[in-house]
Amino acid sequence: MPSAFRRTVRGMRDLLPDEAEKLRYIEMKTRQVARLHGYREVITPVVEHYELLAAKVGEENRKRMYVFKDFGGRMVALRPEFTASVARLVATKMRSFPKPLRLFSVGSLYRYDEPQFGRYREFWQANYELFGSKMPEADAEILELTDNLMKEIGLRNYFFKIGHVGVLRNILSREGVAENQQNSIMQLLDKKQQDDALNLAKNSGVSQTGLNTLRNLLEIRGNDPNKVIQRIAERVKNYSEAKEAIENLSEIIRLAEASGTDAKLVLDAGFARGLEYYTGMIFEIYVPQMDIALGGGGRYDRLIEVFGGGSIPAVGVAPGIDRLALALEQQGTVLHLGEKRKVLVIPVNRELLGEAFRVSSLLKKHGLPAEVEVMGRSVSKALSEADKRGISHAVILGPREVKEGKVVLRHLNKRRQETVDLSKLTESIT
Amino acid sequence: MPSAFRRTVRGMRDLLPDEAEKLRYIEMKTRQVARLHGYREVITPVVEHYELLAAKVGEENRKRMYVFKDFGGRMVALRPEFTASVARLVATKMRSFPKPLRLFSVGSLYRYDEPQFGRYREFWQANYELFGSKMPEADAEILELTDNLMKEIGLRNYFFKIGHVGVLRNILSREGVAENQQNSIMQLLDKKQQDDALNLAKNSGVSQTGLNTLRNLLEIRGNDPNKVIQRIAERVKNYSEAKEAIENLSEIIRLAEASGTDAKLVLDAGFARGLEYYTGMIFEIYVPQMDIALGGGGRYDRLIEVFGGGSIPAVGVAPGIDRLALALEQQGTVLHLGEKRKVLVIPVNRELLGEAFRVSSLLKKHGLPAEVEVMGRSVSKALSEADKRGISHAVILGPREVKEGKVVLRHLNKRRQETVDLSKLTESIT
Repeated sequence: MPSAFRRTVRGMRDLLPDEAEKLRYIEMKTRQVARLHGYREVITPVVEHYELLAAKVGEENRKRMYVFKDFGGRMVALRPEFTASVARLVATKMRSFPKPLRLFSVGSLYRYDEPQFGRYREFWQANYELFGSKMPEADAEILELTDNLMKEIGLRNYFFKIGHVGVLRNILSREGVAENQQNSIMQLLDKKQQDDALNLAKNSGVSQTGLNTLRNLLEIRGNDPNKVIQRIAERVKNYSEAKEAIENLSEIIRLAEASGTDAKLVLDAGFARGLEYYTGMIFEIYVPQMDIALGGGGRYDRLIEVFGGGSIPAVGVAPGIDRLALALEQQGTVLHLGEKRKVLVIPVNRELLGEAFRVSSLLKKHGLPAEVEVMGRSVSKALSEADKRGISHAVILGPREVKEGKVVLRHLNKRRQETVDLSKLTESIT
Repeated sequence: MPSAFRRTVRGMRDLLPDEAEKLRYIEMKTRQVARLHGYREVITPVVEHYELLAAKVGEENRKRMYVFKDFGGRMVALRPEFTASVARLVATKMRSFPKPLRLFSVGSLYRYDEPQFGRYREFWQANYELFGSKMPEADAEILELTDNLMKEIGLRNYFFKIGHVGVLRNILSREGVAENQQNSIMQLLDKKQQDDALNLAKNSGVSQTGLNTLRNLLEIRGNDPNKVIQRIAERVKNYSEAKEAIENLSEIIRLAEASGTDAKLVLDAGFARGLEYYTGMIFEIYVPQMDIALGGGGRYDRLIEVFGGGSIPAVGVAPGIDRLALALEQQGTVLHLGEKRKVLVIPVNRELLGEAFRVSSLLKKHGLPAEVEVMGRSVSKALSEADKRGISHAVILGPREVKEGKVVLRHLNKRRQETVDLSKLTESIT
């Protein structure tokens, strides 16, 4: 037997029924939250032009894409995220859609990463993006929506690590650091290589005062947003654009809190998300049980321009669906996945099979999961197998009962049975 | 601007909100029908070993797979169907699961076909498989389930083209035709090349009586199953296994009809589905408006063995989700997609933005889709834009009303407005 027949491709995985059910439950919740917040779903292909996907992700991620040539000689890749595809839509087919434009996507993504805890080569994300508004209320909405999703799926003790790339970037700009140098500095900060980041800033011509300000900022973090904002504001008081950035973050947080968010906020002045396209507020979702982010987002006002869509500001978030499932598991959360009843209809002989199909169909019409015994088993054998298959009720059809319009209903969990009128069957299955 | 930024890869497509909503609606229905019939979902990867996928599909389909090497040098492919992946599961991780085992999958599949009406290179299917039973009641269940799905999504005038590969194959076997020759004959029949099929049968050693029987059979079809079965049974009365096959189909149809199926059945003695792994009943779903199948299925009792899972009989169906969406569209069916209300909360000034977030959050807690005005627009501008964005109600917050615990509620469709207590807002939005 070839090993290809026994195993998934490395880094890919199968989700068996219990796991699949959790993933689909969370997916259903992401869609419900999308609807409540006015986000409409778009479905874009898993296979996109390499050039499109590469234009959006940084160089490092480009190397991690599944890239190949199709039979037509086109260089294509499996999408590593949704944003490039959605940006393509917003810049083309949806160009004339009125703003604000709220779009949602959900599905599988592909990255050739080294597999490890919580990281697979096929993974699932939801993706919410709000296009057309540069106002802080748009950022606040994204935070509120993310918070509602976490509440809705029953996640506990989650917190948002939050920051604003405008603070550091505006200082660097004022100090004359070119944008690509800024990107390198932000990337070092994202990897927590603060000394390297400061050295690069120095070599890029940042003044001693500037370096002091940066060094001080990198130490400011805490979970009382107002206090942290106050401290940052004091540090950057001589950099007016950086000051505007922190005021913007302050307003975003105030509005999100007005909406009743539960998330604790951990504000970090040195927080930089790897992707270079962020231009404003950035955040990531965490729980104490795991040190990988469950999702993240932020503002990216210049991205749509890259895709030829004119100047359209945008803010969004991408919660990781399989990571959220993992977090719930780590927290020992039991999901309420609905209907637990499941009925097996057993005819005592093959002449009654047609009647068994009629009864099973009747139960399903009333919303009860039902199946006919299909293994040709005797009643006693069928009953003894029913337990381990999660059957809660058995309906047994005998010739005498059927003639009288009755059936035998067996409550498998309660180990009792009764003879009931067919017309009262569904209400008797409790 | 590179063309890669403007277009999907050829044969792939974007589904904008209205289309995506229909697809997801049908997907939701496929999952609901799965639950009602006791099918549990499994999720397998889009990327599988080439060897696994190639073992299942015929040679022709092998050439149509998206195949490539990943960075680890593995030959992989994008799945063209679910069955090989599910068979892998049933033969390995789920080997010890009790039978009958009912599994469901839903998602995107990939085939490098020439794009045409209803045929794309990325498409969506649901997949239902029942493992462990060789009884006709299992086949009947698959027909019943398929019928229930069609009813549930509101498809009209659909019919199942139905047959049984056992009739022709058993005649060919008795006439001494080897299995690979049988496969070639069945493939010719699938392509409606009946003369070529009969010639090949002749060259494979089929007797003149055999050829006459085959020729006669290929002309038998009709939409009165009992009559057609009668005619076939007469033709094959000297071939006992072929007779058993047609009796099996007769019993399957009787049980499916007992469950209350609506589908018209068009029985066709010369019907052969292309894939060579079918061993019993086969069927396809059609509507009069389209000449491509909306899905199909049948019995394949020897497939799991190919994947090393021992002898496990199986019967299944794979309805095409995007094809069903297309069929509904062709029939002019309007889907009932739920909540039509959508509320826009507009503060008259920025000081009231926090209050706007509180009100919007309250509405969402009551299940009402709600958004805060995020464009920084004036009330009149926001209202004039609301119409084209599908907003049904606007809630306007002014300082005086807010102080009194009231808001102005505007019914945009009815062109009237009222001042209501905040505590009575949700019930006033009708």
